[in-house]
Amino acid sequence: MNRYFPILGWGRVYTRDQLVSDFVAAAIVTIMLVPQSLAYALLAGLPAEVGLYASMLPLIAYAIFGTSRTLAVGPVAVVSLMTAAALSKLGLSSPAEYAAAAITLAALSGFILLALGVFRLGFLANFLSHPVIAGFITASGLLIAAGQIKNILGVKASGENLIELGKSLVPNLGGTNLITAAIGLGATLFLFWVRKGLRPLLLLSGFRPRMADLFARTGPIFALAATAFIAWYFDLGAHGVKLVGAVPRGLPNLSLPNFSLSLVQNLALPALLISIVGFVESVSVGQTLAAKRRQRIEPDQELIGLGVSNLAASISGGFPVTGGFARSVVNFDAGAETPAAGAFTAVGLAGATLFLTPLLAYLPQATLAATIIVAVLSLVDLSILKRTWNYAKSDFAAVAATIVLTLSVGVEAGIVAGVVLSILIQLYKTSRPHIAVIGRVPGTEHFRNIKRHDVETHNSLLSLRVDESLFFANARFLEDEINAELSRRSEIKDIILVCSAVNDIDLSALESLESINNRLHDGGVRFHLSEVKGPVMDKLQKSGFLPHLTGKVFLSQHLGVEELQAKS
Amino acid sequence: MNRYFPILGWGRVYTRDQLVSDFVAAAIVTIMLVPQSLAYALLAGLPAEVGLYASMLPLIAYAIFGTSRTLAVGPVAVVSLMTAAALSKLGLSSPAEYAAAAITLAALSGFILLALGVFRLGFLANFLSHPVIAGFITASGLLIAAGQIKNILGVKASGENLIELGKSLVPNLGGTNLITAAIGLGATLFLFWVRKGLRPLLLLSGFRPRMADLFARTGPIFALAATAFIAWYFDLGAHGVKLVGAVPRGLPNLSLPNFSLSLVQNLALPALLISIVGFVESVSVGQTLAAKRRQRIEPDQELIGLGVSNLAASISGGFPVTGGFARSVVNFDAGAETPAAGAFTAVGLAGATLFLTPLLAYLPQATLAATIIVAVLSLVDLSILKRTWNYAKSDFAAVAATIVLTLSVGVEAGIVAGVVLSILIQLYKTSRPHIAVIGRVPGTEHFRNIKRHDVETHNSLLSLRVDESLFFANARFLEDEINAELSRRSEIKDIILVCSAVNDIDLSALESLESINNRLHDGGVRFHLSEVKGPVMDKLQKSGFLPHLTGKVFLSQHLGVEELQAKS
Repeated sequence: MNRYFPILGWGRVYTRDQLVSDFVAAAIVTIMLVPQSLAYALLAGLPAEVGLYASMLPLIAYAIFGTSRTLAVGPVAVVSLMTAAALSKLGLSSPAEYAAAAITLAALSGFILLALGVFRLGFLANFLSHPVIAGFITASGLLIAAGQIKNILGVKASGENLIELGKSLVPNLGGTNLITAAIGLGATLFLFWVRKGLRPLLLLSGFRPRMADLFARTGPIFALAATAFIAWYFDLGAHGVKLVGAVPRGLPNLSLPNFSLSLVQNLALPALLISIVGFVESVSVGQTLAAKRRQRIEPDQELIGLGVSNLAASISGGFPVTGGFARSVVNFDAGAETPAAGAFTAVGLAGATLFLTPLLAYLPQATLAATIIVAVLSLVDLSILKRTWNYAKSDFAAVAATIVLTLSVGVEAGIVAGVVLSILIQLYKTSRPHIAVIGRVPGTEHFRNIKRHDVETHNSLLSLRVDESLFFANARFLEDEINAELSRRSEIKDIILVCSAVNDIDLSALESLESINNRLHDGGVRFHLSEVKGPVMDKLQKSGFLPHLTGKVFLSQHLGVEELQAKS
Repeated sequence: MNRYFPILGWGRVYTRDQLVSDFVAAAIVTIMLVPQSLAYALLAGLPAEVGLYASMLPLIAYAIFGTSRTLAVGPVAVVSLMTAAALSKLGLSSPAEYAAAAITLAALSGFILLALGVFRLGFLANFLSHPVIAGFITASGLLIAAGQIKNILGVKASGENLIELGKSLVPNLGGTNLITAAIGLGATLFLFWVRKGLRPLLLLSGFRPRMADLFARTGPIFALAATAFIAWYFDLGAHGVKLVGAVPRGLPNLSLPNFSLSLVQNLALPALLISIVGFVESVSVGQTLAAKRRQRIEPDQELIGLGVSNLAASISGGFPVTGGFARSVVNFDAGAETPAAGAFTAVGLAGATLFLTPLLAYLPQATLAATIIVAVLSLVDLSILKRTWNYAKSDFAAVAATIVLTLSVGVEAGIVAGVVLSILIQLYKTSRPHIAVIGRVPGTEHFRNIKRHDVETHNSLLSLRVDESLFFANARFLEDEINAELSRRSEIKDIILVCSAVNDIDLSALESLESINNRLHDGGVRFHLSEVKGPVMDKLQKSGFLPHLTGKVFLSQHLGVEELQAKS
């Protein structure tokens, strides 16, 4: 039970001190989350209040099922962008249909995460390599920021990539609404200043660093309040400034999502991508924070926690959610000790939803756009390109493809290209393994590459170390290499294949070994193996290959060379 | 020049003796190829004479560009089946359009093969594992045989898989044409007898085994002649027996294929699959035969040879071709010494096309169906299921999926499933590598798994050997394993990661090593590496990781243990 309901662990020993800490953290996170939730709903193409709806129940669900003590779950930038990309493809005309599709997407995403968790398939997330994730988040950040320019300037534009955005934005630039632009740019500059300028100022004024950080994080709420007041006072809505407008008052109605077959078919793949990207983002935040306090998170249980959170988002009229970086860091820094902080935040947001919704009518959309831009630009970090270029061109290729395709085609193409390309590169690498001719380091029992070390070799004996597991993609390559090596040196009487790096031999490779063995036999050369690992040896023994082997299997390369030299 | 035109190699030293040998082989192969070409055209859904068209120019093209001395190129069973599957999806109504699409498919396949050859991408074929190929050919053989039952019985049926075939065949069984069935079953039994019964008889009568083999291979031509004669004599066409019918007399007109965009889009993927399957089949036949005479074939040049052959098939009104198993073996056994035998065969077939086409009018389709069934059932070998089951369940899964999907969905689904599943299985294996705690085999410098060998270990030192390259899919797994090992044994002061089996470390894995290093440092444990290979060490040195490493990098595990034990 404790495994599936982590709340039973921490909940039973919950103390008064923890309650106070969690409560304070929740208050701060609530202030930060109001503008962010509204903004990310806008980013997903949904009415602003949906962001609030998606921020309540999921927090409570995660508090029950999640294993991270401090992760804050809700709408986040990248997932919101992916939601927009998925929904805009459906070609829905009415906002009500669009909102219903978002609910279905959250539900699908929830079921996928739950299934992955129940079947313990969390390792699938490992196929997203670190550089691909870094590249994807950076490119998504740029794409999101570019997509908000229209809201900052008060013009129309749309598109799923930089090219479409540019094409639809540029012709409309003449129609820029100057008041909107003033509010949008002003809010953007103010928020950047809060991030970069306010914090040093607070520190100088004697604030402790943590307090200065937290205070700086609440900047957006001031921008919202100020611009909403201005818009109300000067009736800016009548001057062409786009406001959030009247929204339904009160908490969301609970309802079940629509699972029409065509909707499910169209959203299945996007839901899978959203689930995996969301999971990876959430787990890496969770692990980073847990490590700081020497706690642990359980990836498979995290899948369950996030799955239930998305189902909760779905029934409360929201859209896909995950563990967010910024909000979790604030929660952590504000002193949250248990997931109860999340539950308190949910209560705080419920209060905000009840009392703030009338005020939202006057909130300029440009202010929300400014909030988004400032938030996502902090995710942009192109240094991954330089880092991978210097370390390995193969990693660079995967990152570059991810970034270029995300920006030029869209988020789904970008993430799929990154994953597929990293897998193909990995296969290509293993299909042409490094094969070294080795000799003994004088005075030791250790054998190394003759090209890199000054080692002893023998004329009639060739020792080859193949630096890869043998499987279908490289089986023929090994055959070719052994043939080539043999045709170069006719004096060879024995070949030892050193298997210290061979971790598996599949049936294709076994057949190649059989054919190598036969061909060497025809040429009067004996074929030996050395340093075969336990699991591999088990398979060879079962296969019936060993009785046909013309040579022997040596426990170590050293023993093999000793024995063969003693004979000759 | 010699590389791209192998004919310049053997052509310059061509002898009179070789000419005679090649001529004799060509005569025998021609007799075998006439029925086979007609039958495989029928299998591909094309008029019978197209099989002859596809058997002439490709042989000449291969004689110029191919590297195998004895490979015979032309229509083969599996590729013809894949052609039928690709073309039937286009929904073309007129036979002329269908034939034009076959020409385009051959051209696309030719360009793909040429491109793979020029860019030296022949290694891509290695992603088709031996078991998947074996399973695919077996399943295709079954599917082809099942598809010919309709022609044997003279009823209508169609379908791309066993299920569709069964559903469309069973209701029509009542309409079986008894004369057709008699001819079809008679021809089938005769051909099976020629294979199994005639050869022993010939051997008993004093024929040499090779002659007996060759004679048995010419059986189909007798079946054709006899049934065509019967059909003409009794005017069976008037009794509902389907005959090949009047065909255009003479050689094919040369023409350029149609490259309309929609056709190319629809045929691109099938053309790729046909190219790869054809190439793999052809290369494995070529290699087997070359090895028998200690010759070599060059896979990348083979791609060029097959590519030009397919272009030749295309301009002469044919369909996709490749190197066939049965015909190449006959060519080899009949004593062919150079690809000139192929060119002579082409001339022989041209003669057959000129003089035999009038006779084809009376040939029953049931006889051709019998030829196909007998030919393909020799390809069926379900023992691969047993072999993989015994050797490794992962190989079994890939084969079983290939066979089941080929039979139940179709050839394209089958081959794609086989490739994708083998790649996924390989990734899954590498994502959860074997990690062994190792100790020294007493009295040696050799270290092995403590679970399998009786070895010496030390309390404060943990030596872990990870049996896999470190990359994105297993980076986190390693972190988890080291954490788990450490939490079990608090007395550990040093951890050595033995990298003898680590053939690459990508950036994701490097980041994991950095995080392992930092976490161990926090816990007061030093982190060492040993037996790092040259290419991996180069990368680590460039990366800037080594200065942060809390321990050392030891040349060998033995030196590492000695040094750490001396200190403590």
